[in-house]
Amino acid sequence: MKAISEATLRRLPTYYHYLEIVNAEGLEYASSTTIANHMGLDPVQVRKDLQVTGVLGKPKSGFKVSELLTAIAAFLNWTNKNSAFLAGAGNLGKALIGYPGFEKYGMSIVAAFDTDPLKNKMKVSNIPILPLGKLPELAERMHVHIGIITTPANVAQEVADLMIEGGIKALWNFAPVHLVMPEDIIVENAQFSTSLAVLTRKLGQTAELELV
Amino acid sequence: MKAISEATLRRLPTYYHYLEIVNAEGLEYASSTTIANHMGLDPVQVRKDLQVTGVLGKPKSGFKVSELLTAIAAFLNWTNKNSAFLAGAGNLGKALIGYPGFEKYGMSIVAAFDTDPLKNKMKVSNIPILPLGKLPELAERMHVHIGIITTPANVAQEVADLMIEGGIKALWNFAPVHLVMPEDIIVENAQFSTSLAVLTRKLGQTAELELV
Repeated sequence: MKAISEATLRRLPTYYHYLEIVNAEGLEYASSTTIANHMGLDPVQVRKDLQVTGVLGKPKSGFKVSELLTAIAAFLNWTNKNSAFLAGAGNLGKALIGYPGFEKYGMSIVAAFDTDPLKNKMKVSNIPILPLGKLPELAERMHVHIGIITTPANVAQEVADLMIEGGIKALWNFAPVHLVMPEDIIVENAQFSTSLAVLTRKLGQTAELELV
Repeated sequence: MKAISEATLRRLPTYYHYLEIVNAEGLEYASSTTIANHMGLDPVQVRKDLQVTGVLGKPKSGFKVSELLTAIAAFLNWTNKNSAFLAGAGNLGKALIGYPGFEKYGMSIVAAFDTDPLKNKMKVSNIPILPLGKLPELAERMHVHIGIITTPANVAQEVADLMIEGGIKALWNFAPVHLVMPEDIIVENAQFSTSLAVLTRKLGQTAELELV
């Protein structure tokens, strides 16, 4: 098990998406220079990043596309199917439940949870919305290891605690709050406000520059 | 205009959300130690981060909560209202259109665009879905500076090009593809696959460790 940088890890999906396009175009090989140009990176960086997959490029032709696709997917654990529970069936929660692309990334939302009894009678995209209280027991019984949090901020911590009580090990947190968790729990934050802070701040700076 | 690290910028919304809770609880001051403990950070880091807002803490009581909230919002340009166009009114696009929280982060989705003529007759959460071809002209006329891309990967680059043709300066890209853009365009990537790569890879490593 090699330690790799988080930056490399975050770039791997983008390589994967690019290679899918190359593959669909029928190209058998892609060089690190071509990949680098397309992604706005240095070829040295590309070679270093892709080293983690164990696939070796050939001196002239480059990397075999199909081989690299398989290796990246295996490296990211996308070839396994990880079951996930989602808590909070509001607008965002429902959109994620209905999102068709997750299977490709090794994740499958198998059930959703909400405290609203009206929602508990519904299904979204054929996924049942169950009462929140049932989450820990079901997570344990179904060996679910990923929890997606799309609840309001004020209940997110409580929901996260319920998830780890049921043996969930990795949290994908969309609620705008910092979760306090034991060290062995994986937390990946995906708050809109974080992305927007970067956009709006930089945009504000651009506007200032134009006024000068 | 101070240069600040992207890491600080990305932490500011989390400070903001925490201070909102503190504020709602009626507390007037928060110390850097309290904030640090809550967010799992070092107090020195907290003081360094919050320095960018220009708000000074008092030796014993700490930061005035209301003052810090106002200063962070101003720093992030959340006190201005930035209009945004969204392209791609699928599941995710519709969820974002209907998301009530963006106004708070200084952004307002004023129109959505899609190439599907059937969708062009619809409104989502009272926002019209217009033909994609109208985007550049409308962006220019309405001085829209933020573009949100929730299209399929294979058309995302084309859509991004249309957006900057209309004078859009900042792109929030949810499509799983690397956008090639001029240097002065701000691109913030928010692809699910990136988040999931981190989750599924780390989860795979945990499973390996347990087997050892």
